[in-house]
Amino acid sequence: MKLRDIGEGRLLGQVFSRLSLGKEVVNGLGDDCAVVETRDHRNLLVLKTDCVVAGMHFLPTANALHVGWKAMMRPLSDFAATSAVPQFALITLIAPEKTKVEWVERLYRGLSRAAKRFKVSIVGGEMSGTPGPVAISVSVVGFVERNRSVSRRGGKAGGALKQKHLQFVPRIVESRWLTRNFPIHAMMDLSDGLGADLPRLAKASRVGFAIEMENLPVARGAKIDNAISEGEDYELLFAVSRRERNRLLRSWQKKFPRLLLTRIGSLSQLSTRNHQVLPRGYTHFQQPG
Amino acid sequence: MKLRDIGEGRLLGQVFSRLSLGKEVVNGLGDDCAVVETRDHRNLLVLKTDCVVAGMHFLPTANALHVGWKAMMRPLSDFAATSAVPQFALITLIAPEKTKVEWVERLYRGLSRAAKRFKVSIVGGEMSGTPGPVAISVSVVGFVERNRSVSRRGGKAGGALKQKHLQFVPRIVESRWLTRNFPIHAMMDLSDGLGADLPRLAKASRVGFAIEMENLPVARGAKIDNAISEGEDYELLFAVSRRERNRLLRSWQKKFPRLLLTRIGSLSQLSTRNHQVLPRGYTHFQQPG
Repeated sequence: MKLRDIGEGRLLGQVFSRLSLGKEVVNGLGDDCAVVETRDHRNLLVLKTDCVVAGMHFLPTANALHVGWKAMMRPLSDFAATSAVPQFALITLIAPEKTKVEWVERLYRGLSRAAKRFKVSIVGGEMSGTPGPVAISVSVVGFVERNRSVSRRGGKAGGALKQKHLQFVPRIVESRWLTRNFPIHAMMDLSDGLGADLPRLAKASRVGFAIEMENLPVARGAKIDNAISEGEDYELLFAVSRRERNRLLRSWQKKFPRLLLTRIGSLSQLSTRNHQVLPRGYTHFQQPG
Repeated sequence: MKLRDIGEGRLLGQVFSRLSLGKEVVNGLGDDCAVVETRDHRNLLVLKTDCVVAGMHFLPTANALHVGWKAMMRPLSDFAATSAVPQFALITLIAPEKTKVEWVERLYRGLSRAAKRFKVSIVGGEMSGTPGPVAISVSVVGFVERNRSVSRRGGKAGGALKQKHLQFVPRIVESRWLTRNFPIHAMMDLSDGLGADLPRLAKASRVGFAIEMENLPVARGAKIDNAISEGEDYELLFAVSRRERNRLLRSWQKKFPRLLLTRIGSLSQLSTRNHQVLPRGYTHFQQPG
């Protein structure tokens, strides 16, 4: 069996289920970020790694500034999903020796701009040659207060909300505001599309879900199927209890008047009936046939 | 100008010199590990990332167990160089979709065995497809007590020692013993060969160096040039003051009777005369002509 015959999620689940996690691990594999205990009694340590590969996540002709920006913002978007504060980043650049030095410098400028946007220090890095395409792996470390850590797993039957915006700036500010002001049951960032990610949140929370299709925000010119199946939204999908709904919508609009928050459906007690069949999101190693 | 025309060290120096590091960064770019301040008053946070690429660091036919072992042990060797305790690891796997699932499972078994050897928890990971070769990036986070953090930069004129062993197990136990019992001025792990790494330590410490060639440990069947220029020793190179030398050699022999510790030369006050010309070690993107 080859990687193309098995999805990323199933493979990660398979290989990681055999790893014994230490008891200091609060959230581990399968969540947006790893969250672990340290000697710090107030905060938890938060870790995330992600990568972009030429030909997979960006075109080889892409502007290196944008590639760097995206490479940094992807893991930071997972910090938003955890309501964590990112602090330090490590960068691994894998590049063929024919790569132009100027391209690499622009790449790091993009990485650096994105890091500065959220006061993240790039503290280390490694470079390697390769006979293949350019790949950039970014690891980020930070913290979250014990009482503000959010995972995919806390979803309860009730409302599900999703906010949508076109410009890709990770929703760290919004996420931190949310956990300061509301009890957020479960949260994740939409990187593989609602159709792949919402079932993951529901599964992790052991609940069912129902989307109200008519409420889904759809970008101009796109169809509802695109809104569900296309990845790289990097918007927050989160769940609050039904009785917080109206207070949240009012406060949100006051705090972030230019960023749409939409109630897209609800979580329900688990029963097979309660899982809608959705157009699939993007799964690594597997493309919809 | 392309990457092949410029060494990894020079390029990293160039791109990183423009990054403004936060004031919480104790050791940053150019050292084996990044060492940063946190709210913890006793310990410093330690971070390191490294990668291995098929065709560069291992043959595509290599045993996946060994590839995983090596991918994990390389950053752990940098922890040894910093006398730090590794705790958590993140793994990024970049692999073409034709990769066999069994190969990936063996790879993670190798990663996991290596991690367990030093009580490191693998807490997260990411996978991506690629049109190129397999690459594995491993990021490790841990801590070091404030009074036991060692960098490349503390070298003073005096003795330089290097220990040599064939089996690749990062020298974390030895390194922790060293900093518990001796004032270690500067330390690093030899990954690119003594000929590349010793000049780096000397430069970081702003001192000169002299190797006593006749004392260099040389593997059976190898020549002295190989001992200097070939990388992947993963042994510790460190400096102590001249007056600690004999006490260290005696205690070391008692504590680690099967692991050779050798005084290979000395550091000296900086003057151009004091830099020996050495056969070059391995520099990424640049091969000796």
